[in-house]
Amino acid sequence: MIEYTRDAQEIYRQSFSIIRSEADLSRIPPDLEKLAVRVAHSCGMPDIIDDLVFSPGAGASGRAALLAGAPILCDCKMVAEGITRARLPAANPILCPLYDPSVPELARSLGTTRSAAALELWRPHLAGAVVAIGNAPTALFRLLEMLDAGAPHPALILGIPVGYVGAAESKDALAENSRGVPFVIVRGRRGGSAMVAAAINALASEQE
Amino acid sequence: MIEYTRDAQEIYRQSFSIIRSEADLSRIPPDLEKLAVRVAHSCGMPDIIDDLVFSPGAGASGRAALLAGAPILCDCKMVAEGITRARLPAANPILCPLYDPSVPELARSLGTTRSAAALELWRPHLAGAVVAIGNAPTALFRLLEMLDAGAPHPALILGIPVGYVGAAESKDALAENSRGVPFVIVRGRRGGSAMVAAAINALASEQE
Repeated sequence: MIEYTRDAQEIYRQSFSIIRSEADLSRIPPDLEKLAVRVAHSCGMPDIIDDLVFSPGAGASGRAALLAGAPILCDCKMVAEGITRARLPAANPILCPLYDPSVPELARSLGTTRSAAALELWRPHLAGAVVAIGNAPTALFRLLEMLDAGAPHPALILGIPVGYVGAAESKDALAENSRGVPFVIVRGRRGGSAMVAAAINALASEQE
Repeated sequence: MIEYTRDAQEIYRQSFSIIRSEADLSRIPPDLEKLAVRVAHSCGMPDIIDDLVFSPGAGASGRAALLAGAPILCDCKMVAEGITRARLPAANPILCPLYDPSVPELARSLGTTRSAAALELWRPHLAGAVVAIGNAPTALFRLLEMLDAGAPHPALILGIPVGYVGAAESKDALAENSRGVPFVIVRGRRGGSAMVAAAINALASEQE
């Protein structure tokens, strides 16, 4: 037998304790404290918390939307899979239309990626929704364009795409002008589906 | 209209080019070069390549196994979702038994996490398989225990769990004594489902 911790609840407890001892949470408001810790938990990097940028009340807005039954709009299947259904307060619908059969033709006609084109299928669900972007910068850019063109406002945008081309830029564009929508981003290249799913899981339940 | 790159292939090309210009690939053998680049692509951190540790021929072993139709054994659904089916050379089965109804009782009887207990359901598929662990350190520890007890050898272990409790330790344990099984790890706390899915996607096809 190898020596290691086998108790899942004890692993969570120790992990959150290590994060709180190592991370600087002084800047993080109470409504985002658990979100910050869970995002750091998902990636093994306490310093990710230094890159969180958010609007006042963003956590409260997302939490209230989930409690009211808001749908969660995801840009990729990994985000949807990372959300713990049992934590959701209102059996909230989790929508990820990326593989809808209409998306490839939409992408061609719009001259953009499938990830961005799939947002056309978000449109009827956008009002009051919680948006979880963890993969594609083009999806976040496209959302900003839709808001500029008058699309309904979600309750919260979690803008955490990852990568080298457009990720930092799309997140900066949201943070500089969120079109009046509450938001949380992880600035820079870092991000991803695990981080944004962790953010949803934190907002979904008070329980750690 | 906001100015940004909308062409998916161009985004990939630019991303891989940025990684190759920033990362130190001098230590990476040819059979792992594309894997290293894709792992860096998945997380937005070129320096992740400095933390790759691997056995000689690990990439070739994994590639040959996939070509021969080997199953891919995943420790969580996010890993399974991150694998691009169209890149797989032999319609390889992707197995993730974590939510099998037998797992909670197995976990209780074994006194371990569900992630580790689910490996009992890997056992009939282990010989020659490609193992993709991107979440749970306990799954990687459990695999080492099963190998010590005589379980069949997979063709490759991608050991990339993430976190604060056991992640670094389980990966070090594999790298120090892989029980004769080819392996790739990302040492330290960093890791995750996106990285290990990216590693599979790189081994699955020569095409970038």
